[in-house]
Amino acid sequence: MVNYNEMALRLHKENKGKISVVSKVKVETKDDLSTAYTPGVAQPCREIDKNKEAVYDYTSKGNLVAVVSDGTAVLGLGDIGAAASIPVMEGKAVLFKSFADVDAFPICLDTKDVDEIVRTVKLLEPVFGGVNLEDIAAPRCFEIESKLKETLDIPVFHDDQHGTAIVVVAGLINALKLAGKKMEDIEVVVNGPGSAGIAISKLLLSLGVKNIVLCGRKGALHKDLQDMNWAQREMLKSTNKNNETGSLEEVIKGKDVFIGVSAPNIVTKEMISTMADKSIVFAMANPIPEIMPDEAKAGGAFIIGTGRSDFPNQVNNVLAFPGIFRGALDVRASDINEEMKIAAAHAIANTIAEYELDRDNILPKAFDKRIAENVADAVKKAAIETGVARKK
Amino acid sequence: MVNYNEMALRLHKENKGKISVVSKVKVETKDDLSTAYTPGVAQPCREIDKNKEAVYDYTSKGNLVAVVSDGTAVLGLGDIGAAASIPVMEGKAVLFKSFADVDAFPICLDTKDVDEIVRTVKLLEPVFGGVNLEDIAAPRCFEIESKLKETLDIPVFHDDQHGTAIVVVAGLINALKLAGKKMEDIEVVVNGPGSAGIAISKLLLSLGVKNIVLCGRKGALHKDLQDMNWAQREMLKSTNKNNETGSLEEVIKGKDVFIGVSAPNIVTKEMISTMADKSIVFAMANPIPEIMPDEAKAGGAFIIGTGRSDFPNQVNNVLAFPGIFRGALDVRASDINEEMKIAAAHAIANTIAEYELDRDNILPKAFDKRIAENVADAVKKAAIETGVARKK
Repeated sequence: MVNYNEMALRLHKENKGKISVVSKVKVETKDDLSTAYTPGVAQPCREIDKNKEAVYDYTSKGNLVAVVSDGTAVLGLGDIGAAASIPVMEGKAVLFKSFADVDAFPICLDTKDVDEIVRTVKLLEPVFGGVNLEDIAAPRCFEIESKLKETLDIPVFHDDQHGTAIVVVAGLINALKLAGKKMEDIEVVVNGPGSAGIAISKLLLSLGVKNIVLCGRKGALHKDLQDMNWAQREMLKSTNKNNETGSLEEVIKGKDVFIGVSAPNIVTKEMISTMADKSIVFAMANPIPEIMPDEAKAGGAFIIGTGRSDFPNQVNNVLAFPGIFRGALDVRASDINEEMKIAAAHAIANTIAEYELDRDNILPKAFDKRIAENVADAVKKAAIETGVARKK
Repeated sequence: MVNYNEMALRLHKENKGKISVVSKVKVETKDDLSTAYTPGVAQPCREIDKNKEAVYDYTSKGNLVAVVSDGTAVLGLGDIGAAASIPVMEGKAVLFKSFADVDAFPICLDTKDVDEIVRTVKLLEPVFGGVNLEDIAAPRCFEIESKLKETLDIPVFHDDQHGTAIVVVAGLINALKLAGKKMEDIEVVVNGPGSAGIAISKLLLSLGVKNIVLCGRKGALHKDLQDMNWAQREMLKSTNKNNETGSLEEVIKGKDVFIGVSAPNIVTKEMISTMADKSIVFAMANPIPEIMPDEAKAGGAFIIGTGRSDFPNQVNNVLAFPGIFRGALDVRASDINEEMKIAAAHAIANTIAEYELDRDNILPKAFDKRIAENVADAVKKAAIETGVARKK
């Protein structure tokens, strides 16, 4: 296997990081200087002073996304702090640029205080056209996101929640086609009641799924369970309708879909074999999934997805966030709402034509050039239809 | 005259602002993705988590400067707010890149609260290698700068103060050579007791000037004057030794040097004619100077500098700040101290060889490619000598 760790160290060191801020204009003559800077630059300033919306005409705001993190839930590394999170946020900026020509900049904040993070992003709002929250631990991430959505005029999107949810849903849409099942009929278990697990559950509910059981380390979240955070408790209002209790091993029985955003090797092929016929398994713990694909297949799983690029059906957020922001920025959306997320999921699913669709090909590859464009188009349309587009 | 206003509007609109965030690495294959992003990216994160200084090895921090403004003193436009200040801050980023290959990013903050600005920049510190303060009104700018210098580990530089001061001093060094006068012998009047005027006065004091009189709208700042802010009152401890009073017209009499960072057309040729022999006049109000060069010459001025590129001897901050940050970043300086500023001034002055020096050529042209390099070298040397360099 390739040693990505060593390659990554070398790449980051040789380039001294991964991003650079460049000029879109030339400054080679006195006239260039007088136009890009003083005295000419005073004129766009005056125009924005007169009309706040002109900031989209005369500055880079309209294409600029803040990648905001406090470094509390970085990859699988946990709370490593703002400075150590920078390589991930720069990486995100690189993907934004490479996949959808969005300018993104790392805003890694040296605080864990919810209100301070919200206030800081609010103070930075003039410069940015959108906010991508990243690697912030649950349940603080929910509070930060909801407060930011309330206070900012620009769209806010927590990728670990919604990006993951959108791609899982896209995969599920295609998997259900192959399994011949419908959203409203399936029973789902989601293992890992953190930011991604909760967001996936919410998006599935929006799509008409009737029964979802969220599981944590102590098994099913149910009414009498102790030690749930407010976000998990809130989810009980719309999930686990039959108040199932017990371990994952018990809860998974008879379910159509297993969605894991939890820990390596916690599902066995025996557990898979107790699921409903034509079961669908998304085992997305990274780098080692909840169950390896060959094991899941041995247990009878019909379709298996993971977070890894070396197995079929990779659930990769890069399928979603570049196109979503491209679309949101293009129509100057004030929000990224449920309808836009669902539209993005369908766009990703539909990127695979009927004739291409099979059990090992339910999700497009990351480098499929059609994706960001398809997603952006669908997101724009949904933004316009739901009235959050400020430009058409 | 060229209509820079119209050209600037067109330039800014066509390009939708002036900056872009680009990737320094390619993302074209699965391996690229696994190296620049997950799973490889975890490794530089781990290294920084283990050793905070590694952030300079594996991220863009070491070449990244925050251009921070609250939009309260933008060009001559005054308090136009954060959003309307963006074109200037993007312009600054463009100049940083074009003149010294420094990556700079606009941080335009929607607040005027000193402590909130200081706290916000502190929270952003992980990402940046330096802070350039810009267009913040006096006396708040002094407080913000001094609090930031105290709290941050990275260098902080308020360009409106020190950039201007450095270039004025550079010009004065060369002007005094031609006039055959010495720093310790000259009498100076500085008109405009704001951020630039105060910083110029301080740097002149550091260089050995003995008598400086600061003037404001009510004439000389002196011990019994009302309505001075704390920064102006503080300056009285080291300036106006003879406690001169009266209007600029009275104070300018017999002075060797007039430095104006104030308002258009407030100095007459008659006033210039009352100055000492071989008088030096820096009339830097922009775009219309305190006195036009031909008028000053008619009044007997020996050397005249302005802020304008269409007259000789332009005092232009672009001569200083790109090289200063280039030097400070290269040696990972923890501060930009007086010695580094003075070294920068001498480097700018010395860029003009003795044989090139004349009354209409005391300062190099903005596009002289030697400048940023000369300034950076001098600043690095001074940083090392004064013990603020953390890398050699």
